[in-house]
Amino acid sequence: MSAPLPVQLPVGFKASGSTCGIKASGKPDLALFVSDRDATACGVFTTNKVCGAPVIVSKQRVPSTIARAVIINSGNSNAATGDPGIADAKSMTAAVAEQLGCDATSVFVCSTGVIGVPLPMPIILKGIPHSTQALGTSDQHLLDAATAMMTTDTFPKLTSVDLAVASGTVRVSGVCKGAAMIAPNMATMLSVVMTDAQLTPEQCDSALRVSVDRTFNCISVDGHMSTSDTVLLLANGAAGGPLAAADVSRVREAIQQVCQKLATDIIRDAEGADHFITIDVTGLETRDAAYRMAKEIADSALVKTAIAGGDPNWGRIVSAAGYANVDFDTSYVSLHINDVEVYRAGTPVPFDAAALSHQLKTNRNVHLLLTVSGGPCSGNESVRFWTSDLTQEYVRLNSEYTT
Amino acid sequence: MSAPLPVQLPVGFKASGSTCGIKASGKPDLALFVSDRDATACGVFTTNKVCGAPVIVSKQRVPSTIARAVIINSGNSNAATGDPGIADAKSMTAAVAEQLGCDATSVFVCSTGVIGVPLPMPIILKGIPHSTQALGTSDQHLLDAATAMMTTDTFPKLTSVDLAVASGTVRVSGVCKGAAMIAPNMATMLSVVMTDAQLTPEQCDSALRVSVDRTFNCISVDGHMSTSDTVLLLANGAAGGPLAAADVSRVREAIQQVCQKLATDIIRDAEGADHFITIDVTGLETRDAAYRMAKEIADSALVKTAIAGGDPNWGRIVSAAGYANVDFDTSYVSLHINDVEVYRAGTPVPFDAAALSHQLKTNRNVHLLLTVSGGPCSGNESVRFWTSDLTQEYVRLNSEYTT
Repeated sequence: MSAPLPVQLPVGFKASGSTCGIKASGKPDLALFVSDRDATACGVFTTNKVCGAPVIVSKQRVPSTIARAVIINSGNSNAATGDPGIADAKSMTAAVAEQLGCDATSVFVCSTGVIGVPLPMPIILKGIPHSTQALGTSDQHLLDAATAMMTTDTFPKLTSVDLAVASGTVRVSGVCKGAAMIAPNMATMLSVVMTDAQLTPEQCDSALRVSVDRTFNCISVDGHMSTSDTVLLLANGAAGGPLAAADVSRVREAIQQVCQKLATDIIRDAEGADHFITIDVTGLETRDAAYRMAKEIADSALVKTAIAGGDPNWGRIVSAAGYANVDFDTSYVSLHINDVEVYRAGTPVPFDAAALSHQLKTNRNVHLLLTVSGGPCSGNESVRFWTSDLTQEYVRLNSEYTT
Repeated sequence: MSAPLPVQLPVGFKASGSTCGIKASGKPDLALFVSDRDATACGVFTTNKVCGAPVIVSKQRVPSTIARAVIINSGNSNAATGDPGIADAKSMTAAVAEQLGCDATSVFVCSTGVIGVPLPMPIILKGIPHSTQALGTSDQHLLDAATAMMTTDTFPKLTSVDLAVASGTVRVSGVCKGAAMIAPNMATMLSVVMTDAQLTPEQCDSALRVSVDRTFNCISVDGHMSTSDTVLLLANGAAGGPLAAADVSRVREAIQQVCQKLATDIIRDAEGADHFITIDVTGLETRDAAYRMAKEIADSALVKTAIAGGDPNWGRIVSAAGYANVDFDTSYVSLHINDVEVYRAGTPVPFDAAALSHQLKTNRNVHLLLTVSGGPCSGNESVRFWTSDLTQEYVRLNSEYTT
């Protein structure tokens, strides 16, 4: 991947990335995001019953109208660490709060890395003052922070969108780290989205939930839900006063646009993957039905290995949709692979398999379009989902003994 | 695998395996099972909405009290073949019925192999008389039939259980073919279980459903449900009159025993697999909760790659259980890998990781035991599940371009 273009922070936000020494590699491991004033904040967290201590702590602090900072360490997930882990997560927020002169409950915490190992608190607590001293508003500061969140990511992931509103200009900027998995860690998807727009807690929560539903919840590398996934949204209102209703909608769209870029970057950076696969399922009565069908296709090892091998094996794709517990009738189902119709109204369509295979082998991007055009469960809902293929390299990476 | 021991048919059953020429390899492709008298029969079929024509035809004929035969071809699944496929499946049963002098509705049909290609009916219809002429009652006849069902299986799968009942001896014998997947086919799990015990349609149906629930539904190679999975049970009563109630229970147990041996043989023969994994989840309030947790562990690519690599990565196992949508409390959860406790009451237990890794690398059999010992959703229900690991060889086999 080429270096990302400069990405700016919204007004009133600062960021830093620094090294406190958690990672044996000596790479940056502490990311800090700070708003210079109280922000509205909300979050969406993993629903895994086995979740990290930082998830438990941060979850209790949303929604918030006094949010000031997010502290993130990489290299250790502080998961499966029991009650001491909770105390450590709280200590991290207290240390940041002390530096900023705010309440600890104004600070959120995320951790990513190895499971089941206590955090090295002395070096983290020593690192936090350095990390606040390093805060700045430049694009380099944001890039440093995005870099310090990385674990197995091969490139930092950050993006922003500017939009003109009645009261001036508003910016939405976001960073994330990838959900790909590598032994012995269960890597985690973490994202912080910041905006200088002014949003109420309700607007904030609704915008984030809809965005995550259509972006981060529509990606799958291997279907394994991590213990620490967290997406936080902070809106500090530094760009001006309350927004007009129409502008709230546009800010919501910008938040979704930022989330989509970050989510798809995770798929682009999936471990050992050769293909970036976009799956569209259309024509269902409910979004949920379309979602389940798209997710079964995305999670099917047989679909993913076929695409890895450049094999336009449509039977695997339609049959994966067939076990999504949606009561559709195959005689209304069609499938296109990269605009080539291979299955129409429940029967195979003759196509140039060699040409399509060549296309799959030479083009990293794959598009699957499954259309339901009538019969039970049909309607106007559709879902777009993104996934990666399953390669021998994925298995090699994930089966290496490193415990 | 060593050659299977001789397995006998129940009284009143005949079998044959023959070659009609569907497979380019010239290997046997037509299996026939016949009862010399009307049998009670029932079936359990794939719930995939994209299902083969033989599933549609056979499903309409159960439960039955006039069952006489099951005809199975390998090499072509007759799936995604539209209305002509249904007509072909019916023709196969009519051709068998003509040979046996019975009604076509007394005959069941199964097909396994390539999807979306019309059956080569002339050679099949020419082969069926040969297949009825080849019928016999010896163990070799049963072995031939089990062999003719095979697609990617590396060994035929058959077993039987004899048991003494008040009225004499009863036998339950079963055959199956594997569910492992290989490009470009979506291989199918097919099984025929026969007994000379006398069962009512209700006893037959209930025995098969419970057995399948605890055996064939508790195995997973890659989580991809095939379009043609079928398990049929025929009970012809040739061993004598009605069974005492206690004997009915014992026959049910024997049916389950036969199904379990067949189901676990499928896992032993899973494509590209190095490990045979038994997963026990115990201490849940409902069997369904235990089942969902076991299935998420079995289907997790991260769990399967860790075991392939001999990595005792317990975090992947407990976190897979964590997203099974069961509201348990981790502080009551423990995990053993091959009798080594690695996680107790929600916290990691120090263990000799090198020794356990060595054990995983040198022993094909792996046992995972996840125990819930209190808290919400806990209780006395448990589930045993079987799966295989995920190796680079699996990916190689399934990504080869062969369309």
